[in-house]
Amino acid sequence: MKREEVLQFFQTLQDEIHQGLVEFDPAMQWKEDKWSRPGGGGGRSRAGANGTVWEKGGVNFSDVHGETNPALRAQLKTESGSFQATGVSLVLHPCNPHVPIVHMNIRHFRLDDGSEWFGGGIDLTPHYVDPVEASQFHRALRAVCNRYHADWYEAFKTYADEYFFLPHRDETRGVGGIFFNELGTYEGTDLQEGFSFVQDLGRSFLPNYLPLVEQKKELEFDERQREWQLMRRGRYVEFNLVHDLGTRFGLHSNGRTESILMSLPPLARWEYNHEVLAGSDEERTLQALKKGINWVN
Amino acid sequence: MKREEVLQFFQTLQDEIHQGLVEFDPAMQWKEDKWSRPGGGGGRSRAGANGTVWEKGGVNFSDVHGETNPALRAQLKTESGSFQATGVSLVLHPCNPHVPIVHMNIRHFRLDDGSEWFGGGIDLTPHYVDPVEASQFHRALRAVCNRYHADWYEAFKTYADEYFFLPHRDETRGVGGIFFNELGTYEGTDLQEGFSFVQDLGRSFLPNYLPLVEQKKELEFDERQREWQLMRRGRYVEFNLVHDLGTRFGLHSNGRTESILMSLPPLARWEYNHEVLAGSDEERTLQALKKGINWVN
Repeated sequence: MKREEVLQFFQTLQDEIHQGLVEFDPAMQWKEDKWSRPGGGGGRSRAGANGTVWEKGGVNFSDVHGETNPALRAQLKTESGSFQATGVSLVLHPCNPHVPIVHMNIRHFRLDDGSEWFGGGIDLTPHYVDPVEASQFHRALRAVCNRYHADWYEAFKTYADEYFFLPHRDETRGVGGIFFNELGTYEGTDLQEGFSFVQDLGRSFLPNYLPLVEQKKELEFDERQREWQLMRRGRYVEFNLVHDLGTRFGLHSNGRTESILMSLPPLARWEYNHEVLAGSDEERTLQALKKGINWVN
Repeated sequence: MKREEVLQFFQTLQDEIHQGLVEFDPAMQWKEDKWSRPGGGGGRSRAGANGTVWEKGGVNFSDVHGETNPALRAQLKTESGSFQATGVSLVLHPCNPHVPIVHMNIRHFRLDDGSEWFGGGIDLTPHYVDPVEASQFHRALRAVCNRYHADWYEAFKTYADEYFFLPHRDETRGVGGIFFNELGTYEGTDLQEGFSFVQDLGRSFLPNYLPLVEQKKELEFDERQREWQLMRRGRYVEFNLVHDLGTRFGLHSNGRTESILMSLPPLARWEYNHEVLAGSDEERTLQALKKGINWVN
């Protein structure tokens, strides 16, 4: 893979998505930070807050390299002594509880044994699960997958159900999405195809997510719904700090803390043993936070 | 150690502390839940919320036993096939940012190889560090330690500095306290002495903490101080979910999630790259979140 081409793509993607968000929510205030990593490489973080659509969020580019350490070697199942990782990650926390949280992370990885691949994922976390919205989101992902292999959507959707899951709550994080790894190294894929897929997926982000926001961002909500949003954000914090491999690896490997924790919400709430009302939208949401739901049919 | 005596002590301690909190903040609403653990044992959780002094908190008793698993064996550095753990843990999140968060956890542990010991810790997390308050708190802990061994306070205080630390923030959680383990198994201690120490420490909780609350609970605060409190609570969440061994072990061993996460605050805030004002109380607090500060002199 030509390194320049990969770098160029991810930086441009960050610019395009950031620009799309700025146009959609001009009130949001952004900070850009360029940083370098003591062990090698660096990044360009763009974090936004206090919009009328999004309360907090970020679109980060990073290109880091260096020595692997035992934790990273275990995670990558490799003996390689050095790595290079380049990618874009984003999380957006909306103001309105009816608008879903979204996350995407796509990256290129290379080890000093010459192996390289693309990986990533995207998932939607509604505070209130809406099957129509979940279907719109999944159909768009399936359309991108179907340009490549007939079995990719199913495989990557199943992988996302497994990954975006909180065992201690017995809940999925939201309605899932797709999650994939090592595109370019396993049978039936090649690196160029992996790169092409990641480009298509990255460029499909705005046209997939923004219409979901558009259709809900003006909906009214009351105090109970706001509190529920803050509690669901609490679960988001639990997932990211307890389970998310990227977050945990970043924190344990002296990554840039403020960029890693960009994913955390502006405000989150924990209530002891909160119980939802029978027949409520909150109860319906909990019932939908399960693995294996087919959202596209 | 007579099991009945240990059980009796911890249950009575939970009652006494709970009763003291009820009297101090009669507005706080409490829920009691008795639960049993599928693998063996159970507990009695008491969680409170919406007081005028404390916004959220809990005083939990648990007495669990069962098979060890690989994670627990690694944590305890044992090959033992079963364990029994009995103890009390508490966390209190005050309403007023001038009043510090407090945590205490004391327990008795027994393995099937016959070994047993007492362990625990207590630490204070002010949103605004006040050296006088930190000194009051540490002097009270030193007084308890000094009834036993002249070097315990220093040793346990140093251990607390190491333990209650967020490497990814390069900050201690607060002004620390004491942390100890395996009292009764290492040289110079015996089990009866460990039990006696844990009883003294547990009974010193209310007379140590309540006066610290009393002297600050009516202080006025503004919106900036409230926001700072919510951000410091965000750090508390980070410590508990990323680093705290008890929390992580509980979540990974199918403990009772609601009891384990009793420690999380009612509301927490994350702001990207928040910067404190030069010369502010917030800056002075950050400067005081360091290991190795001698608070008693």
